[in-house]
Order: sequence, then C-alpha cells, then structure tokens
Amino acid sequence: MAFDTASLKFNSNGLIPAIAQDANSGEVLMMAWMNADSISKTLESGQVTYWSRSRQEYWVKGATSGNTQTLVDLRIDCDRDCLLIEVKQEGPACHTGRRTCFFTAVRNGNEVEIVTVAEDSEAP
Amino acid sequence: MAFDTASLKFNSNGLIPAIAQDANSGEVLMMAWMNADSISKTLESGQVTYWSRSRQEYWVKGATSGNTQTLVDLRIDCDRDCLLIEVKQEGPACHTGRRTCFFTAVRNGNEVEIVTVAEDSEAP
Repeated sequence: MAFDTASLKFNSNGLIPAIAQDANSGEVLMMAWMNADSISKTLESGQVTYWSRSRQEYWVKGATSGNTQTLVDLRIDCDRDCLLIEVKQEGPACHTGRRTCFFTAVRNGNEVEIVTVAEDSEAP
Repeated sequence: MAFDTASLKFNSNGLIPAIAQDANSGEVLMMAWMNADSISKTLESGQVTYWSRSRQEYWVKGATSGNTQTLVDLRIDCDRDCLLIEVKQEGPACHTGRRTCFFTAVRNGNEVEIVTVAEDSEAP
C-alpha cells in the first residue's frame, strides 16, 4: 500500500510525535514532533527533519550542530498516531552533549544522571 | 535530587508521552500517555500504568490481557516533557498480538508489515 501522510493521525496542531532510535545501538535518543511536510522532507532528503514547536519552523536535526540524523527506517504504530525513526546518529543527539536526551533516571525516589557528556563534545 | 512529578512538563491536558522500551531486547514497544498520578502509580506498584485518553481512565497495562509491563527503569528527557520506560514485557505489547506496535515500515513509498503476529498470541 502506498504511504500517504494524510493517513496518519495528527494532533490538533497538526503534529505527530516522532521517537528517534539509534539503529545500531538500539538506544532511544530523543522524542520530537513532525508535521506532514516534515515527514515528507525526511523521506525525500534522508535527513531527519522535525517541526520545532518553540521556533515554529522546520528543524533539520544537526543542520547547525553537525549532529545529523540520517534516516534508516521510518515506522508507524498501530494507531497511526506515533512514529519511530531509526537513525544513524552523528555525534550526540542531545543539545547537552549527551548521546541521548534520556540521561536522567528515577531510582528510589531520586533523580540520577546515568549518561555523562561525551568528552569529544565538550566546548573548546 | 528527590523526584517530584510536579517538575515535569505536562501538556494542556495534563499528560506526558511515555515511550515503552523492552529492557532486554531494546525494542521500542509502544507510546502512550501518563498523567502525574499514573507516574506515581507506576513507581509505587512497579506495574506500568498509563492514562487512557479514549476511555479517560487509568490503564494498568496488561490488567485484562495479561500482557503486563513491569517497570525496570523510568527515565526523563532533557526537556522534562517525555518519559522513557524500560520494561519487562509479558507477551506481546500490541493489542494486535504483535510484540511491538511499530510493525509497519515505510519503504520506497510503500507501507510494509515487518513484524508478524506471534503464534502463541493467536486466539484459540
């Protein structure tokens, strides 16, 4: 069946959550939002392109930082209201310099940082 | 630092997206929503508890199907507006009987089913 973005269920702002997973390590890297056009741009360019809710503009991941996400596989869930994006991640995915945005765990009622900033991503 | 659900960023409906990942295989299983109380219930009971937007009630995953999710680790992203839940998944996570809800891939413009229904989850 041909894929049509119109078959997806977007929220009232025309957005759908997109989970980025490292295709190699399986690590979940981040969650951001896409609209129909950013899905099309991602599929056409092979560069994962979100919609920035804060800046209200397309956000080609890594366009300024160099920490790009190259599309490996795009998956749709059973309800058609969430995407899973398998990516080849260049550098850290998180703006804090950590490889994943999910670097804080809740253990025994406390927050624990479980992923440190990569040495090679430190500012000079 | 002590964890407080009030420190999270919920949407206008008081909900936060929660991504469930199989702690063993690394497979992303599903995405659903939690409110502050369902996060507390999950941490207290060890049984992953979502908020069902369609039924407007707490949804202890697997309470009726037996396909429970036991909490292994709960993680928060850098923006504090998304959760990653590492789980021990009993049986298939998807209501279709597939181990993951993300069983459809978009390849060369077409939708392709990449995960089949597990034989042992077929109705008798």
